[in-house]
Amino acid sequence: MSFAHFSELLEHIRARRSPRRLAVVAADDPHALEAVLDAVRDGVVEPILIGDAAAIAILLRRLGERPDRFRIEDVADPTAAARRAVALVHVGEVDLLMKGRLETATLMHVVVDRSSRLRTARVMSHLAVLEIPTYHKLLAITDVALNLAPDVEQKHQITLNAVEALAAMGVVRPKVAVMAAAEELNPKHLDSLDAAELKRRSLAGDLPGCLVEGPISYDLAIDREAVTLKRYASPVAGDADLLVVPGLTAGNLLVKALMFSAGAKFAGLVLGAKVPVVMTSRSSTALDKQMSIVLAAAATRELVHG
Amino acid sequence: MSFAHFSELLEHIRARRSPRRLAVVAADDPHALEAVLDAVRDGVVEPILIGDAAAIAILLRRLGERPDRFRIEDVADPTAAARRAVALVHVGEVDLLMKGRLETATLMHVVVDRSSRLRTARVMSHLAVLEIPTYHKLLAITDVALNLAPDVEQKHQITLNAVEALAAMGVVRPKVAVMAAAEELNPKHLDSLDAAELKRRSLAGDLPGCLVEGPISYDLAIDREAVTLKRYASPVAGDADLLVVPGLTAGNLLVKALMFSAGAKFAGLVLGAKVPVVMTSRSSTALDKQMSIVLAAAATRELVHG
Repeated sequence: MSFAHFSELLEHIRARRSPRRLAVVAADDPHALEAVLDAVRDGVVEPILIGDAAAIAILLRRLGERPDRFRIEDVADPTAAARRAVALVHVGEVDLLMKGRLETATLMHVVVDRSSRLRTARVMSHLAVLEIPTYHKLLAITDVALNLAPDVEQKHQITLNAVEALAAMGVVRPKVAVMAAAEELNPKHLDSLDAAELKRRSLAGDLPGCLVEGPISYDLAIDREAVTLKRYASPVAGDADLLVVPGLTAGNLLVKALMFSAGAKFAGLVLGAKVPVVMTSRSSTALDKQMSIVLAAAATRELVHG
Repeated sequence: MSFAHFSELLEHIRARRSPRRLAVVAADDPHALEAVLDAVRDGVVEPILIGDAAAIAILLRRLGERPDRFRIEDVADPTAAARRAVALVHVGEVDLLMKGRLETATLMHVVVDRSSRLRTARVMSHLAVLEIPTYHKLLAITDVALNLAPDVEQKHQITLNAVEALAAMGVVRPKVAVMAAAEELNPKHLDSLDAAELKRRSLAGDLPGCLVEGPISYDLAIDREAVTLKRYASPVAGDADLLVVPGLTAGNLLVKALMFSAGAKFAGLVLGAKVPVVMTSRSSTALDKQMSIVLAAAATRELVHG
């Protein structure tokens, strides 16, 4: 299964009829709240709004909602709000976290803090999912935001995080392209060596649940014409579900080129903690924010204690 | 001056009415020859075709041309053909080199060989120029092909190579964006430190002929809406002529995303030797090849001994 558009992913999640419980940290943020309300109307999430209760109530009314219909927890301090959200995860009342009106660093500090017990043995990583007008399905890209220059072990875990999230979304055995500038192994290009190692591990069964190709260049990963022209044979070629980029700067340039020059829509979330964290930026559009919530809900399996 | 489309650059070069002398190495390549003939008809270049003379003559006839109207030099061995082209540079008969039917490595080996005396004190670098449907002018990107992970001194020279080529094309005082994942200086991101250093040098007058901004992210370099939204103030922002990428893999991903997902047309050339070298790949379209010749001709000042 794969999704051609975010709208299909949304339909898939609606059809599950089991909204995920979303804690919004510092929820007195008009854009975040607007996106949350859209996701509530779509039946994707049930929110717990943590933050300055009076400010949240004012914003809800402005957005045409009755505050008394929502669970609001009055915790004005952003760090305290983040800690409250974490506590709700531990008691099994929350499936997802979302950043509201606070600095990314403030929220991440609480999430990664060992005392929060939100971290697992896994590396934490970011998963971006893009709807690119010229590509035939949603394309996931990792890690374009958290890990600056991951080594091969970290890339292995980053890939696993993404593959598991895609599996939860319903993308079975995703096709993974580990990116480099070319297909040849080049001892001077660490990217190419790491990519070959991830493919080797996949063939050896050590990277389960997916099909890995690498090193592979962008054109061969996503463009069927280029694949034919270069006579490149791989089940992943021209049909990748997930690109693993060599580092943060390369990934950032790639994703921004797709968003700002190819008209791609963007959703993103942080994986590797006990629950996914929706972390949109100030400049995200309302649609990007909403799709990030949909993506996070889709990437979450129903919790046993749910 | 800037060019919105390759067609405007072509018009600019035609108006100069002084075709550059182009030596095609191993010219018995149908796609390269076709592109050269188009450039000849446009008055952009006068070619010297070096290679297997019989094969070149056959191809010319197939392309509807009379072989006796061209200067053909019969040097069948590719390395010998490359050396002959270099000799013609030294006697002032050639302004540009172009790769025909030989391996890039074979041609580059001759170009960089000290005994060829084609190298200057400069780092050799690649300049890509893209026509992106969603951008308001041609966008140059360097270095996406030659230097794997340049240090700040190499980036300085790579930038100078590109700025001088743009100046020769008629792009006065190009706006240079030195790319990073974000605008903040981050000691862990060498990219951001190098970018800040290049900006410092520019302000100090050590990087003449251009306007440098950095570290800067892709959206702020090319998207005016993002610039307004993020309230970012810089004369370069949203209007970059040249992006300097942190390394080859990041640049490759960026350029291929623009080509294969944003519908960009591509031209490229190698700078830093005595003359520019046109180096297109097997998978380049005929238009990409032709525009690379136009770009190279445009990037060459009239030689004194011309």
